[in-house]
Amino acid sequence: MELAAFIHEPKGAFSYAVNQETLHIRIKTKRDDIQAVKLLPIDPYNWKPVSKGSHVWEFAVKTIQPVEMKKEYVTRLHDCWFAEVPGFKWSRIRYGFILDDGQELCFAGSHSFIPMQEDSTPPADHTNYFNYPYILEDDLYRAPAWVRDTVWYQIFPDRFNRGAAGEQNNLLAWGSDELDGPEKKFGGDLQGVTEKLDYIRGLGCDGIYFTPIFESPSSHKYDTKDYFRIDPQFGDNESFGLLVEEAHKRGIKVMLDAVFNHCGHEHPFWQDVLKNGQDSLYFDYFYIMDPDKPVVSNSMAATADDDDLGAHLNYRTFGFAENMPKWNTENAEAREYLLSVAVYWTERYNIDGWRLDVANEVPHDFWREFRKKIKGINKEIYILGENWFYSNPWLQGDQFDAVMNYEFTAAVTRFFGVRLQNQERFTAADFVYAINGLLVSYPKPVMQNMFNLLDSHDTARILHSCGDNAELVKLAYVFQLTYGGSPSIYYGGEVGLGGDEHHNRQCMPWDTAKQNQDLYQTIRRLIELRKQYNVFKETDIRWLSIDDETGSLIYSKESQGSTLYVLIHNSPVAASLNLPVELKDQVLQDIFAGESVRLSDEISMEPYSFRLLVH
Amino acid sequence: MELAAFIHEPKGAFSYAVNQETLHIRIKTKRDDIQAVKLLPIDPYNWKPVSKGSHVWEFAVKTIQPVEMKKEYVTRLHDCWFAEVPGFKWSRIRYGFILDDGQELCFAGSHSFIPMQEDSTPPADHTNYFNYPYILEDDLYRAPAWVRDTVWYQIFPDRFNRGAAGEQNNLLAWGSDELDGPEKKFGGDLQGVTEKLDYIRGLGCDGIYFTPIFESPSSHKYDTKDYFRIDPQFGDNESFGLLVEEAHKRGIKVMLDAVFNHCGHEHPFWQDVLKNGQDSLYFDYFYIMDPDKPVVSNSMAATADDDDLGAHLNYRTFGFAENMPKWNTENAEAREYLLSVAVYWTERYNIDGWRLDVANEVPHDFWREFRKKIKGINKEIYILGENWFYSNPWLQGDQFDAVMNYEFTAAVTRFFGVRLQNQERFTAADFVYAINGLLVSYPKPVMQNMFNLLDSHDTARILHSCGDNAELVKLAYVFQLTYGGSPSIYYGGEVGLGGDEHHNRQCMPWDTAKQNQDLYQTIRRLIELRKQYNVFKETDIRWLSIDDETGSLIYSKESQGSTLYVLIHNSPVAASLNLPVELKDQVLQDIFAGESVRLSDEISMEPYSFRLLVH
Repeated sequence: MELAAFIHEPKGAFSYAVNQETLHIRIKTKRDDIQAVKLLPIDPYNWKPVSKGSHVWEFAVKTIQPVEMKKEYVTRLHDCWFAEVPGFKWSRIRYGFILDDGQELCFAGSHSFIPMQEDSTPPADHTNYFNYPYILEDDLYRAPAWVRDTVWYQIFPDRFNRGAAGEQNNLLAWGSDELDGPEKKFGGDLQGVTEKLDYIRGLGCDGIYFTPIFESPSSHKYDTKDYFRIDPQFGDNESFGLLVEEAHKRGIKVMLDAVFNHCGHEHPFWQDVLKNGQDSLYFDYFYIMDPDKPVVSNSMAATADDDDLGAHLNYRTFGFAENMPKWNTENAEAREYLLSVAVYWTERYNIDGWRLDVANEVPHDFWREFRKKIKGINKEIYILGENWFYSNPWLQGDQFDAVMNYEFTAAVTRFFGVRLQNQERFTAADFVYAINGLLVSYPKPVMQNMFNLLDSHDTARILHSCGDNAELVKLAYVFQLTYGGSPSIYYGGEVGLGGDEHHNRQCMPWDTAKQNQDLYQTIRRLIELRKQYNVFKETDIRWLSIDDETGSLIYSKESQGSTLYVLIHNSPVAASLNLPVELKDQVLQDIFAGESVRLSDEISMEPYSFRLLVH
Repeated sequence: MELAAFIHEPKGAFSYAVNQETLHIRIKTKRDDIQAVKLLPIDPYNWKPVSKGSHVWEFAVKTIQPVEMKKEYVTRLHDCWFAEVPGFKWSRIRYGFILDDGQELCFAGSHSFIPMQEDSTPPADHTNYFNYPYILEDDLYRAPAWVRDTVWYQIFPDRFNRGAAGEQNNLLAWGSDELDGPEKKFGGDLQGVTEKLDYIRGLGCDGIYFTPIFESPSSHKYDTKDYFRIDPQFGDNESFGLLVEEAHKRGIKVMLDAVFNHCGHEHPFWQDVLKNGQDSLYFDYFYIMDPDKPVVSNSMAATADDDDLGAHLNYRTFGFAENMPKWNTENAEAREYLLSVAVYWTERYNIDGWRLDVANEVPHDFWREFRKKIKGINKEIYILGENWFYSNPWLQGDQFDAVMNYEFTAAVTRFFGVRLQNQERFTAADFVYAINGLLVSYPKPVMQNMFNLLDSHDTARILHSCGDNAELVKLAYVFQLTYGGSPSIYYGGEVGLGGDEHHNRQCMPWDTAKQNQDLYQTIRRLIELRKQYNVFKETDIRWLSIDDETGSLIYSKESQGSTLYVLIHNSPVAASLNLPVELKDQVLQDIFAGESVRLSDEISMEPYSFRLLVH
């Protein structure tokens, strides 16, 4: 056995509570090394006298009822094992493992590995058992139930829709491709969104994530000037209130962008610091590197040609953006100010979610306080961090409900995409390993609420990544919309809006002649099916066929007696796919086509095609 | 390369900040598999145009300055690599690794491994770099500086000393061995401790950890009746105040035991619940399993002969102890009550530390609030959790400063001990692997404050574990007192008080004829040397010689140009130890003997002997 590759850690993605009596336990072992794993759970206080009335007590390992672990997922390097352990009335558990490679048995404990025989009693040394000390309600991860039933629509307001009354001066022509630079404005507004709520609902989306809408000089508005005011171009606080009301009438949730990592150059507190230096009341609201040197800012982002990026900066910023001074959220008053912003919009405007910009560059303690404050107002609000990478430290139940799942984006883009910046394309197997790796890297309840996106205002559009091939794009949406979590569509993606990472904020083409209606209908139908069949939302996947040559995948998901089979043929040439045994000669419902199909041994697939079959 | 055994995770023991510009990074690889490791650090926002003025940007991997990692520790299965990465002015870092097995190079990223050539530029795919998003002061682990300079003396008050005025009725004769049962009282008191402060200081200890002293019916007092009152047997609140004052005069810190997981049967809130059931104001202060069933308790611990332990309990308890109902610290009022206890003693009596009983069975959020409250009163207070096992989730800087290091106890006991309950004895190599495993399982700053103990009121006495052989005991103390962290001596251990886990609370023998004076002088001298030579307190160890046959170890520690060499000969027979090259023919100071020694090629060691040499 390759014991150096045995991986487990208590409390985290490998061992977490789902309720007060149930734990999920995972381990990783080297790929194809171990044939079976048993989990040995025991109450930590289960000590018994060695014999009736004896003064000598021993850890009651004889009473252990082993639990068979399941080899749930496979990655390129590891087998990932899983067990759900229910029935812990006293909410505490110690545990070890028995590894079986077909020839030998080995006890895997918290401190050492011990060879075992088939009929051995588990080791009696209690210090060699892993420990989940106590499951407490307060420590449990809990997210609002509506999130996993929601399909999001992400809107970049300047580019989505101009409302009927929304004409202004100095705007570019709708659809112009002069996108370069944050000062370019197209005049989209909240009234424009309100007018399109039925469109959004018609697509099947029931949540809107707005990139920032508070007053700021740029088109993207990540450089806030006034956190308490809707940007005048977009409307006013009242029109936002109306929008929320109209959205709620249609069953649409509304999520705002909380830009609390930094503000914009024009924010009055920052202006006060620039003017008054150390005499400013707000001096400590920011991170000034050397208080004795002047604080100078020219309101422009740092130029990237600097050899030493940020060399001239005397304050912390977002990235090296000179116009985005970083808030000192460790200063009690600055913190209070930012929390009052969150409270204001949550209390007065009844919003349903906060997306936290640059969330992982702000202290954990700030987010814990944020969560308490906000959930204290509305228990059912969704808290979503913009963390691009490994995020378990923020997802323990005390901070975020989920993160923007860019790890998912990266995997999907590499498999379905063909235009990849510095990234290698995934084979079908690479893709499966990556998705499996993701599925085991977070607790299952967290996966149910992950914000799964194909693209956003910060990435290339999925159409661009797919080489402007809408058939490939469809496959990406098929995967996204048959995957557990909370999927999001970036406005316009549904009608074939494209663009690389510098052209990802184009105007929504409302002229249907400029829309890809076929793509729209496909996505609309996929969302409809997701709403109809709960099995789409299950997070667990069973891979039935992985074909590296054609790039074809067959996988299934199960929920309450219903099974969904997804066939994805990621290839430019038609092919006959060999069906897995459980599908051969079966009659199933092709729910996308809306007809019953009798399968034989194989199934012929058109280039870049998919099938959704339900049993 | 055995890539399945490559282990790293961002944020935690493998990657943590020590100040705003410095990270510590660790990885594990399979033992003897990799010859060299380079760390590749880069600022996450270090993107540059591919050429002057270009619109296409790339992750500036060409600017990376690799950092050589050091193979710092070896365990039975893994090599553990370490690098300190200073100079991150902007407090953010992305990083990857290059593994070199002598034949091939491989880039190890957050998502995949990529073969490399000697002159390759690191991979440009930024998504494959690990991420430490931002080092924030608020997130840093910080503990009081005095802790690492302290040697603790743990006192079980009923058994330490009766004060001059402390005669009471119903007490057992001092030193009687009728220890069985929590109702046995010997009449130790606070006045008795105050009278012995000079004794404690004379030994060299400068911190006292008291097991509970609040009013309770038992001798151990873990079943609190009144949290605001010193147990009348021990004295009163005033005599405690005097004790703290007298201790502080002598430079001795005072740490109390916070028993907030549960209270005792006689606590008035619990009595109210027993009397009034659901009508009690305090019903929700506890965890009643079935509110419709009566809450009954007979004030006795559950009998261990039950087949289904706790089957008859209708409320949560500590372990299965019927007389210790578990506090519902998730109830806001119960929480407020317990926090007010902590505030009361911290504010009024100026104590220096809280040891948290059964700390890992109480919610994380409770301890976060506890920390804020208590550190708000006294920034320099020490917060010590009673966690017996893997404790990283409590040691992120937001909860505890350290835990009672029973993982250390287990390792030391197995190497120096000969009477082990269900535990295998360690060879020298086993011991080194276990200590190395511990050294890499927590961040270095945490290790500096760990409460390292050989025994306590909850274990067998070290003398017992060592087969009542005081020479072996000395070796255990030598290891403990030359090890980084905050060592603790359990009262009486210094004069050879013994006893198994059921006889570990015996009366302190004040009759010097009954004390092992030789052991006392050895320990006193070791503490004196620890105070004199800062190098004793360094956490890092370099193992120079590990001899499994004789059980001999030679290791060194370094600090500010001074090197300490420790030679431990854990064997019943004298032997000549081969000296490592760097000691051969050297002249060193034998600081324990207080003489200079000229070494040759080997050194002869008496049975169970040690040498402390300084260069």
